[in-house]
Amino acid sequence: MSMNSFGHLFRVTTWGESHGPALGATVDGCPPGVPIEPEMLQQWLDKRRPGQNKNTTQRNEPDAVKILSGVFEGQSTGTSIQLMIENTDQRSKDYGDISETFRPGHADITYWQKYGIRDYRGGGRSSARETAARVAAGGIAREAIKALAPNVEIKGYMTSMGELEIDRSKFDWDAIDQNPFWIPQGAEIAQEWEDYLQKIRKEHNSVGGIVEVVARNVPAGIGAPVYGKLDTDLAAAMMSINAVKGVEIGEGMNAARLMGTDNADEIYMGENGPEYSSNHAGGILGGISTGQDIVVRFAVKPTSSILTPRKSIRKDGSPIEVVTKGRHDPCVGIRAVPVGEAMMACVILDHMLLHRGQVGENRGKIG
Amino acid sequence: MSMNSFGHLFRVTTWGESHGPALGATVDGCPPGVPIEPEMLQQWLDKRRPGQNKNTTQRNEPDAVKILSGVFEGQSTGTSIQLMIENTDQRSKDYGDISETFRPGHADITYWQKYGIRDYRGGGRSSARETAARVAAGGIAREAIKALAPNVEIKGYMTSMGELEIDRSKFDWDAIDQNPFWIPQGAEIAQEWEDYLQKIRKEHNSVGGIVEVVARNVPAGIGAPVYGKLDTDLAAAMMSINAVKGVEIGEGMNAARLMGTDNADEIYMGENGPEYSSNHAGGILGGISTGQDIVVRFAVKPTSSILTPRKSIRKDGSPIEVVTKGRHDPCVGIRAVPVGEAMMACVILDHMLLHRGQVGENRGKIG
Amino acid sequence: MSMNSFGHLFRVTTWGESHGPALGATVDGCPPGVPIEPEMLQQWLDKRRPGQNKNTTQRNEPDAVKILSGVFEGQSTGTSIQLMIENTDQRSKDYGDISETFRPGHADITYWQKYGIRDYRGGGRSSARETAARVAAGGIAREAIKALAPNVEIKGYMTSMGELEIDRSKFDWDAIDQNPFWIPQGAEIAQEWEDYLQKIRKEHNSVGGIVEVVARNVPAGIGAPVYGKLDTDLAAAMMSINAVKGVEIGEGMNAARLMGTDNADEIYMGENGPEYSSNHAGGILGGISTGQDIVVRFAVKPTSSILTPRKSIRKDGSPIEVVTKGRHDPCVGIRAVPVGEAMMACVILDHMLLHRGQVGENRGKIG
Amino acid sequence: MSMNSFGHLFRVTTWGESHGPALGATVDGCPPGVPIEPEMLQQWLDKRRPGQNKNTTQRNEPDAVKILSGVFEGQSTGTSIQLMIENTDQRSKDYGDISETFRPGHADITYWQKYGIRDYRGGGRSSARETAARVAAGGIAREAIKALAPNVEIKGYMTSMGELEIDRSKFDWDAIDQNPFWIPQGAEIAQEWEDYLQKIRKEHNSVGGIVEVVARNVPAGIGAPVYGKLDTDLAAAMMSINAVKGVEIGEGMNAARLMGTDNADEIYMGENGPEYSSNHAGGILGGISTGQDIVVRFAVKPTSSILTPRKSIRKDGSPIEVVTKGRHDPCVGIRAVPVGEAMMACVILDHMLLHRGQVGENRGKIG
Repeated sequence: MSMNSFGHLFRVTTWGESHGPALGATVDGCPPGVPIEPEMLQQWLDKRRPGQNKNTTQRNEPDAVKILSGVFEGQSTGTSIQLMIENTDQRSKDYGDISETFRPGHADITYWQKYGIRDYRGGGRSSARETAARVAAGGIAREAIKALAPNVEIKGYMTSMGELEIDRSKFDWDAIDQNPFWIPQGAEIAQEWEDYLQKIRKEHNSVGGIVEVVARNVPAGIGAPVYGKLDTDLAAAMMSINAVKGVEIGEGMNAARLMGTDNADEIYMGENGPEYSSNHAGGILGGISTGQDIVVRFAVKPTSSILTPRKSIRKDGSPIEVVTKGRHDPCVGIRAVPVGEAMMACVILDHMLLHRGQVGENRGKIG
Repeated sequence: MSMNSFGHLFRVTTWGESHGPALGATVDGCPPGVPIEPEMLQQWLDKRRPGQNKNTTQRNEPDAVKILSGVFEGQSTGTSIQLMIENTDQRSKDYGDISETFRPGHADITYWQKYGIRDYRGGGRSSARETAARVAAGGIAREAIKALAPNVEIKGYMTSMGELEIDRSKFDWDAIDQNPFWIPQGAEIAQEWEDYLQKIRKEHNSVGGIVEVVARNVPAGIGAPVYGKLDTDLAAAMMSINAVKGVEIGEGMNAARLMGTDNADEIYMGENGPEYSSNHAGGILGGISTGQDIVVRFAVKPTSSILTPRKSIRKDGSPIEVVTKGRHDPCVGIRAVPVGEAMMACVILDHMLLHRGQVGENRGKIG
Repeated sequence: MSMNSFGHLFRVTTWGESHGPALGATVDGCPPGVPIEPEMLQQWLDKRRPGQNKNTTQRNEPDAVKILSGVFEGQSTGTSIQLMIENTDQRSKDYGDISETFRPGHADITYWQKYGIRDYRGGGRSSARETAARVAAGGIAREAIKALAPNVEIKGYMTSMGELEIDRSKFDWDAIDQNPFWIPQGAEIAQEWEDYLQKIRKEHNSVGGIVEVVARNVPAGIGAPVYGKLDTDLAAAMMSINAVKGVEIGEGMNAARLMGTDNADEIYMGENGPEYSSNHAGGILGGISTGQDIVVRFAVKPTSSILTPRKSIRKDGSPIEVVTKGRHDPCVGIRAVPVGEAMMACVILDHMLLHRGQVGENRGKIG
Repeated sequence: MSMNSFGHLFRVTTWGESHGPALGATVDGCPPGVPIEPEMLQQWLDKRRPGQNKNTTQRNEPDAVKILSGVFEGQSTGTSIQLMIENTDQRSKDYGDISETFRPGHADITYWQKYGIRDYRGGGRSSARETAARVAAGGIAREAIKALAPNVEIKGYMTSMGELEIDRSKFDWDAIDQNPFWIPQGAEIAQEWEDYLQKIRKEHNSVGGIVEVVARNVPAGIGAPVYGKLDTDLAAAMMSINAVKGVEIGEGMNAARLMGTDNADEIYMGENGPEYSSNHAGGILGGISTGQDIVVRFAVKPTSSILTPRKSIRKDGSPIEVVTKGRHDPCVGIRAVPVGEAMMACVILDHMLLHRGQVGENRGKIG
């Protein structure tokens, strides 16, 4: 019942503040014998790392992950894995002035009200820096999935940012890794996104975005009704990411507008089992995977840490106009892409293990 | 780690199938001394109960809840409470023909693939009938909240159904209980909704809808970052409801379209503490309640159990056109309203207890 | 984190009071496809049932278990199983006078202090009657184990009662089911035990006892260090039984008296893998099963519900001499035998599922 | 459901191997505002630390604990606390020869069988070195208890070692901290124990022991029946410690020999509430604290790592005589004293928080 943990059998507990000595994740329940080297995790941390280009914060952290336990001679041992990322670039002075004030739209005020104490440096525990620990843990999950189901592929990308939206008719899976927004579109569109975002940055503003994460080739049968549903756990996993305000599976909120004749995915028999005419369900029926792509989308709000002054109060209740200097992303949605992928990987692995535990292998044959 | 349980300190485990002898909820962790009588729970079950009007299924179940344990002389004892609802109106013959077929858009196929056995009668465990147990448990949660924070008010209502949407400029809180759609609008609008739905029913179709649930006067400070966030648990709670495909907190998916200057709720000092100029956050910052209204929205897909034939397969893989007779709601979103309220009540109570456990009372003073 | 639940993947939540309408267990996580009929559970309940002979309470309950969910056409479906036992023989008047007094050595006083309310009838929730629910759940566990590892055999027996002790040199496994004390000795010894107990009963007294439970043919490799150890969970499971004051694994408390040269079980290679020269470890090393017999022992205190007057107080603090009339076992240890077996079965199954979940099959070969 | 975690609201997850770079504990659920400095934890680690005298292993580790998160300006923030202890004195060469062999009585063989991989250096995860993390976490728990109930006092001591036993008629609470065995007896007796142990060491042997841990002034009312009982959690906590084979509460296994007239603690009214004529119950009735001393005892087996040759096998199944060189305690029970205290502190705090969560303050008045 730890409040800093998620997962059932594959269970991740994160710890650490933005400006403390280090942060990390304690990963429990990893199957034994999974090949794990720091570089396997580092590649995902590098994807999330700030300071790579002008669309993300200029804070420059190597974010080098160390594996302190649970891995021996390059393989997981089945015991708890400790992942640590040292904080090396902490300019705490940037944040000193916020120790007595509350940034609007930020967790400053609620942490203070609840706990009566908070590490205000860089947002402390509420900083999005915590997601580095998730990404590292997600790297473990990816390797464990690879050992169990080598064809599973997990990829995230942005589908919208402010008023921009991708053109699904020109969806290009291969383009995703070729641009700084992880959008499934060509370089021209990426340039438009960049121009749009730079304009917002120069206006001392920020903007929200939507991230979609897809898991392909996940076997049918994982997920456990009625409260350990695959979509339930995905919703919780994504909503727990900083700044996320909405989560959708498959058709998502739009399902409310559809008729039953449109929404239900018709079934036919393919060569290797059931196939579906469409995927409104997002690969999940009754909380259990169908074998189709698992599709999750989440909305990230515009960061509240902006240079434009906003009205707020101090601890003593006096009014103040807050301007957040520090170094902040104009669109935190961009860096949420690898975080969403990591959460997807953790949830998928967890449910693969749960399924194996309770059921073993799928028991119902079709055809 | 029970898959049929939710909640941390206030923990609900549901059991039962649509056409078994009974279904119910085992409720653990209720504070002692809470006044509980069956009628207190029955009122919410009656709100959810089918057969009340032509907009919902004609299945007629009294849905009478029995309290089998944990309540003594009209008060909770602090031990586990068993709530049982007997199934009295089971016309299993209506469903016999689906034992070998899979309804498109339904959990039939995934339950079969995973478990190799399923109670196909009325959808068995995957039936929305399971939500009766949640509603009963939510009734317990409401009484416990009342004992701890008497001003808390929890109310759900529909905000859209297919192409219809409420007019927020004419939002009428008092109208909600006056119409069969639980919409916050006058009788005329309700009549429009009814005409629209009857048309869909006659066309042998179904339609989706959006439900919004609001909790007023919840004290600031409940919720526990970073994975036991109030919004994380609300997202999981709502997504676990049958047919839900999306969950939003406050601004929800729309946050992706906003600028930072628009989205952050400015703070000023009110008479009784901090107040906010707006509520884009839906009453939650950093996973902790702000004291504002907690606002959750979720989309319910159109039921896949319709009279219009849909293509599917049988267990043996052969093709079939499925027509679901039975008795089904043309818009299951309507009856999801009391279910959403129940989930909200359970989550709020759970977090009030968790907060009291870890923190006692809010420790940070403002002003 | 439910306080009325135990187990990880196979999770049992019990509910109900001694004199309420019913009690039972909600069993979650049972593998699908396990054959389950009420009679399979009833046999163990009959073993625990009071009123069978003069060594146990004369309360006469059929203790008939009903399966309300999770079983379809004689097989588990993988969803939550509800087991209910109705209370049919409640002579509440026997207990009326204890509503204002606290029996020495009984949970009356602590339940009252903590909760400020208690169902005092027959001990309410603290009654050993709760263990009927465990025994029913244990019946499910036994069938699920049978499906996974047919050779596993679980048996409990008494090893001591007051000043009597079994003679291990004449241990007779087959005699266990032939006498009312479940002792592994012949009929003559059983007669001695009976005479001894009747004497104690006539003296209006009660006596403690020790129960040993053995699980044979449990595969090596189940159990998960360092807090989900097999022995850790067994210790918790047994200590949670009413009146238990001590739990031992293998050599138990006596290990403190041994030298390292005596205690370590030497290993040699048998035909089917490693074998051991002795079993001081009780079949568990480092929290993981060795493949030897798993041996657990627990001490049950003499019941405090006796006819001999004992000094105590009333709710108002005034002194009183308490004589507990009701119907009580002179040695509750006897009926703890099937309860201990049930707990063993639940823990073994749970760890078999956990092992399959995290590891699949044992990965380390020897020889 | 993490296998390396214990506790409900105050939840500790440990990680690390004996000879890896570091080990530690992730502590979740600590109340905010608790004063915490490294020295507060270090004092308990120093008590457990090896190399202090010839009765314990000569391994010399400073065991310096670092607090990496969750503490800000000397106070807990309510977020997850990471405690890290670096391993500085790892003579791995001592252990190289055991990579292919299994020590009798040790977890070597079961870890191998289960996981197919193990960090064999110094026992890896199964090393008693893991308990350093518990002791550090216990230091946090002690400070949090101090903030909630300043009078609580937790102390452990040995009551027997091999054939030696303390003389309870000469019990001296103040002597405990004055001798290296933590026995409640004068220096003369301690000398006897030392002589006895040195003789065993010189004989290349080891010996078991019994540790008793007492918690004084714990308020009545903590503990939650029927599976979250205080004694249930204490039994699990103690049994999870390396080499523990038995756990007793109050009268313990001896309760089996008593009559009901002897065992029940009579109650009378004291100045500040109920008092008891004796404490056979060990301060717990029905799983809930009575306000008396909470008394737990556990037996620690003699370590299997001894210089006397023992028969065993290699991975390939071939026979071998094992002599464990390394540096090992002749009686690991001695260093189990601070570990038992730490587990007691964690369990007591956890249940104080749980009680506050569900109940608030005790609701039942007496007198």
